This record gives sequence, C-alpha cells and structure tokens, in this order.
Amino acid sequence: MQNESTKKGWNIQPSKSATSTTNPIRELVDSGKYKPNPNKDMIPLSIGDPCVYGNLNVVQAVNDELIKNINSGKFNGYPPSIGYPAAREAIAKFCETPTSPLTTQDVVLASGASGAIEIALCALLNPGDNILLPKPGFSLYECICKNKGFGIKYYNLLPSKSWEADIEHLSSLIDDKTKVILINNPSNPCGSVYSKEHLNQILKVAEDNYLPIISDEIYAGMTFGDAQFYPIASLTTTVPILSIGGIAKRFLVPGWRVGWICIHDRNNIFAANNIQGAITVLSQIILGPNSLVQSILPTILDKNNQVIQKFFKDTNQTLEKHSNLTVDVLSKVSGLNPITSSGTMYQMVGIDSSKFKDISDDREFAIKLLNEESVFVLPGSLFGMNNFFRIVFCAPADKLEDAYQRIKTFCENHQK
Amino acid sequence: MQNESTKKGWNIQPSKSATSTTNPIRELVDSGKYKPNPNKDMIPLSIGDPCVYGNLNVVQAVNDELIKNINSGKFNGYPPSIGYPAAREAIAKFCETPTSPLTTQDVVLASGASGAIEIALCALLNPGDNILLPKPGFSLYECICKNKGFGIKYYNLLPSKSWEADIEHLSSLIDDKTKVILINNPSNPCGSVYSKEHLNQILKVAEDNYLPIISDEIYAGMTFGDAQFYPIASLTTTVPILSIGGIAKRFLVPGWRVGWICIHDRNNIFAANNIQGAITVLSQIILGPNSLVQSILPTILDKNNQVIQKFFKDTNQTLEKHSNLTVDVLSKVSGLNPITSSGTMYQMVGIDSSKFKDISDDREFAIKLLNEESVFVLPGSLFGMNNFFRIVFCAPADKLEDAYQRIKTFCENHQK
Repeated sequence: MQNESTKKGWNIQPSKSATSTTNPIRELVDSGKYKPNPNKDMIPLSIGDPCVYGNLNVVQAVNDELIKNINSGKFNGYPPSIGYPAAREAIAKFCETPTSPLTTQDVVLASGASGAIEIALCALLNPGDNILLPKPGFSLYECICKNKGFGIKYYNLLPSKSWEADIEHLSSLIDDKTKVILINNPSNPCGSVYSKEHLNQILKVAEDNYLPIISDEIYAGMTFGDAQFYPIASLTTTVPILSIGGIAKRFLVPGWRVGWICIHDRNNIFAANNIQGAITVLSQIILGPNSLVQSILPTILDKNNQVIQKFFKDTNQTLEKHSNLTVDVLSKVSGLNPITSSGTMYQMVGIDSSKFKDISDDREFAIKLLNEESVFVLPGSLFGMNNFFRIVFCAPADKLEDAYQRIKTFCENHQK
Repeated sequence: MQNESTKKGWNIQPSKSATSTTNPIRELVDSGKYKPNPNKDMIPLSIGDPCVYGNLNVVQAVNDELIKNINSGKFNGYPPSIGYPAAREAIAKFCETPTSPLTTQDVVLASGASGAIEIALCALLNPGDNILLPKPGFSLYECICKNKGFGIKYYNLLPSKSWEADIEHLSSLIDDKTKVILINNPSNPCGSVYSKEHLNQILKVAEDNYLPIISDEIYAGMTFGDAQFYPIASLTTTVPILSIGGIAKRFLVPGWRVGWICIHDRNNIFAANNIQGAITVLSQIILGPNSLVQSILPTILDKNNQVIQKFFKDTNQTLEKHSNLTVDVLSKVSGLNPITSSGTMYQMVGIDSSKFKDISDDREFAIKLLNEESVFVLPGSLFGMNNFFRIVFCAPADKLEDAYQRIKTFCENHQK
C-alpha cells in the first residue's frame, strides 16, 4: 500500500547546503554583472588563471608527454580512486624534503587542489565544528565550509607585517570545537611567502592546542627574489599536516584539474584513528582526477627533468618582473598602497578612500574602474579584506602597463 | 587572550561523514583481500571498466581531436565551473529529443557521472530526507547518500520481469520525507533496458507524488538486439527530470572523468525555486572536469560524425556478441540462472545454492571462484541482490570463453 503523502502539488526546494553555498569570485566572474566601458578594450586582471592571455604557456614537453600517453591507449580506464601508484609515488618524491619524507601511501589525488581541499576538510570536520581560516583568504575555503555546515573563525593576516598571521589573534580564536588550522602559503590573495620563523610560530599554536594543520601549498615554489618557500611539514616533528598541492599554477594548466593531498603524519597521530582511511573513502565518491593527466606526473614532476626545472625558473622570472612592474607603477599613485608580493601571481593593493572624492570602498572602486577604464580587478572584500583590491599580474607586460596607466588615470580622475 | 581548550593531548578523529561512507565495490577491488589461485592466470570480470583488457579502445579520431586541442594551447585555463559553453551546447544537442529539447543553459558538467550524481543529489536533498534507490543498484548511490546523511529506501527490481521496478513496492515506500526517485536505465548491474511502457509507469508514480526523477543514463545508447533506449525525459511533459550522462562508457574512457547533468524542467517546476542555481553553485566547489576533454565534446558528440557513429555501432555489436556468449554458456550450467541483458556491459547471474554442496551465498561463490579458478566476479550482495553475481563481459571473447569454462568447472566441482 502507498503511504499517504501530504503533498498537494509540485514544490521542489533546493537543499539547504546548496542555498548556503556561495563562491563569490566565481559568482562575480560568471554572473556578468560588472560591465566594462564599451569604448575601451577589456583588461581582466581578475581571476587567478595564468592562461587568460596566452603569454604564459605550459612547456611543450608536458604536452608531448600527454600526447604520447594518449596514443598509448593505456590510460583510459579507471585509476584507483586515490590515483595511479606511479603518480602518487611521483608526487611523494616531488613534495618530500629530508625532514618531511613521503611515501606513495601518503598521497591521495583529487580533482584539482579544490577537490583535495574539499576532501581534507570533510575528513576532519563535522557540522558544528569550526576551522580557523586566514583573512584575507581564498574564498573557496569559506564556500566549502558553508556548504558542509562547518563553522568558520577568521584569523587576521597583517598587511603591516607582509601578511603574516596575527598569532595572538589566531590563538585567541581556538575553542573546544576547533578542529583544524588552515594556512595558505604562498598566499592567494596576498602574494606573501612565510618565513621559517613565522611558520614555526604557527606550528607552536597548533602544537599547544593539539590541532592539525591543512596547508594549502598550491603556489609552492612560485617565489621571487630572496623569498624561499618552506613546506610547513618540513619544520615539524610533532604536528600532523595535510598539505595540498597540484599542477594548476606551476604548470599553468588550471583547467586540467589534478591536485593532491600529502598526508604528513607525525608520531602516528593521524594513523591512530585512521585519518588516511577517511581520506581514501572520500576519494571514492568521484573516483579521482583525469587519468591521462595523472599518467604524466612521473615525468613532469621528476626533479631531474631539466626542461621542467627551466620552465619553472622562466615562469617565476616572468612573474617576478610583472610583480616589480606592478609595485613600481602603483606605489606612485596617490591613494593606492601596494603590499609587495614575494610569490604567486597576486598583488594586493590598499585603497585609501580618504584620497578619493567619490569612492567609498573597494567594491565601488572595482565597479567604477571597470565601468570607466575596462580594467577588471577583484575587490578585497571578496577575500574578507575591505579597502584592498587584488591584481592578477599574469597578463603580458604591455597589457599590464596599459592597465596600470588606466588605474593611474582612474585614481587621478577621482582624486579629491 | 586564548580561550581555554580542554584538550590534553592529540586525538584527531575522522569525521562522521567519512566514517559513514562506504563504497563496497571500490573497497573490495582496492583492498586486495580476495586472492586468486596462483597457478591460474587471473581473469577479472569485476569492475565496470571496458579498458581492462585493451580489446575495447576509444576510436583514434577522439584521440586526434584531443591532441589537436592540446597543441592549440587554448584549453589549459579554467572553464566556467559549469563547463565551456560549446561543450554544454554539444551535450544539449547530443542528449535532446524532439519531445525533450535542451539548451546550453540546461547542461552542467561535472567530474564524471559520479560527480554529476553527487551534485544532483546534493541539490535536492537535505540530511533526513530520503530518496528511492533501485535494488539491485550501483553502489555509488548508497555511498553518496550515506556520506551526506540522506535516507535511503530501496525499491525492488524484479528479475522475473527483466529487472523492471516493482511499481507497487516503489509507490509504497513514498512518505513525506521522500524527495527524489532515482532510476538507472540502462541498468548497472542488471543490463536491463526499460520499455516505454515501464518508464511511463514510473513517471505516473512520480507525477502522483510530485517527485522529481534523477535518471542515471550513463549507459544511454548501449543496447542490443531489439532493445531501444528511451530517455525518460522524452516521455513526460509534467515530471521534471535531472538526467545524468557522460562519456565514460560509450567512448570507453572512464578514466577521463567527464560527466554531466541535463536539467529537463517541466512547467517551470525546477525554475520556480531556482534548482538550476543550486546545481550551478554546487559545481563551483571543485570547478568542473578536465578542460581538454571538455574541449573535444563539440566534435565527438556531433551526431553527424560518422566515424563516431560507426564506433558506437561497432562497440555495441561486440558487447552484444559477448552478452550472447555469456548467456549461451552459463544458461547451460546447473545452478546458474543468467537473466539476459539487453544493454550495458553487465550480466547478472542467479545462483541456486540448493544445487551446491558447499556454497551458501553469492559472496562465498565469488571468493571460492577466485581462489580456485582465478575468475573474479562481484557478488550481487554488493549491489543489494543476494544470490546473484555480476559479470562484466568486456574481456576479449577468448578470455570470456576461458572464464566461463572455468565457472562451469567450478560449479560442477561444487555440485551436490
């Protein structure tokens, strides 16, 4: 017999998890709400995609390897959900250091670093728990947490200290429901690269409070000048770390969607409750990333591959030049205060609203800049940082120069 | 000031969602618990991957298109999270019928059909709601629902009626918490293809109870003999449908991880509460599937592409031959009752335990068959159907013949 349903008509509601999910950057970019000046060609410096202009390209050797493996016909089937063993071994070798060794068993692949972050968060948090997230920070962390019902506490990054975490503030936020500290180093949107000393300060907080760290290191190795990137796992013998990586940024292929989690256990703290098993079972839901791209990891992640090493160096040199150009020009504009980047492809620029007659905040700055000059930057409020805007400096140098001149003109036009 | 945490030491627990997640097929396959006979070469007929043996290959034209697009360098960046517009348009044209038209706006891409199913379920269900799932059925549905805390009610498929749904049973399960009916047609593990009449019976239940349908149609078009596949959306003007598809099975590339949701709204029932928006925002969490594979969809999904159409036909002919071989041999084995497939790559075989002296159930059948004959089939209990086992008949015909002779020998050896 059929149970009586009380339904009297169609009324399909979206789930609460969907309605509580927002991804402000994608919404903004995908929505098409912002309108450029139709008389000026658009210069988007908005999304963190190095491929927008075609000046930054994956090295041909990577394509060649991919093509070879496609033609082999050997990589069309299902890999294990956690990834091909050879791919995992390659990642282990690529990411390990003498003080943070990794084996194949410590690596789980995912659909992009985004997918890896989702799995890492879902392995460690229950709804009602909370996580400490950086502010400003990459909006995806918040997006995932809101979708899953995980509580969020934001710890401040300090522009006056090159975007280091406010350690006292970080500590003060921890309560019994806090399960994880998330850091992002090198940082999106800040372009900062943490010193060994600062990472040790963060580790001390984690250790004192028995909290594991999820370290989003998708920009690992993308540093300029004297800045050196330290994997946080290489600095601790006591705090268990899940470090997130991927090929999106360093290889300039964000659309390829291959990321990973490296499980840096310490003193069997993760193993004691089978966190590895939790991560594995979560990887079985969508069965891992594209097999063809997985298949090339042993070649392209080989540290002895000189072609790739040169490609990394060349990319970093280009980005460093663009970073310098960005700060050189914008630091001379009245009302703007760029905080020099030491890595990634991002530049945060402070806005001194008191210098402008008709710009009250970063959102208004970004909208008017687009409307008048067709330059698209993201307001810092999207990352939790009012009165800043973020520049992605991947465009060709001449485009950047054009964009920065337009920003200068824009600021002059709106100057008090 | 730091809040006092009561923690006195390390104790990192996996989340409840992870510990409640199981994917029995992957667990079994990945665990390596089952051991073959070391003196006989292993013949796995277990996982639904047509690529295991190398006899079924994607057609070279697909690889060529992929290679061309790799070399163009135009498809390395982030597509929109819901997919490239050209890919979505191609899917719309590929999946639509005269009575179920689709536009680009009705299509959202995901990381494989698995990712598409996850998004569809998460868009429509809250924890505590329930969904009607087929029994036997693909274990991923259960895996996702348990992970998310969605209640499950299983409706019976009837082996005596070529695995049609027991409509009375289906209706009887519906209560106020029921939000979705999920069907899988053509079916894994059953190999059944529903008639128009049967689909109309299911639609009647959905309509009477105001329930949308998620129709997993990943095996669309993979039919044999007289069987014809009808997209369920093509048969209704009143019931809104989310149909799931992908390239994994028809193109023989499950590792490539590109699937999709086609949103077949009816009378604006989905649109009234912006279900499209819910699906879109959920796609923004992991930002969609591999861009390179997306880029080839306009070419490979073109219904006028004769090379692809011939490839589909050839693949189906091979699978039909294998299906016939399977039933021919196994129907003559005492104790086994294969239910003839009319599509997919699967064959369910009933086990009459009363004929065997020392095999009490399907799990024991599968373990002993592997131990003694090195033939690996999945026990039906993994799909919710005791006393059956599932065969994947993608292996080359000579391998299948060898495997079926071994199954025959095995059954004779254990005969009462």
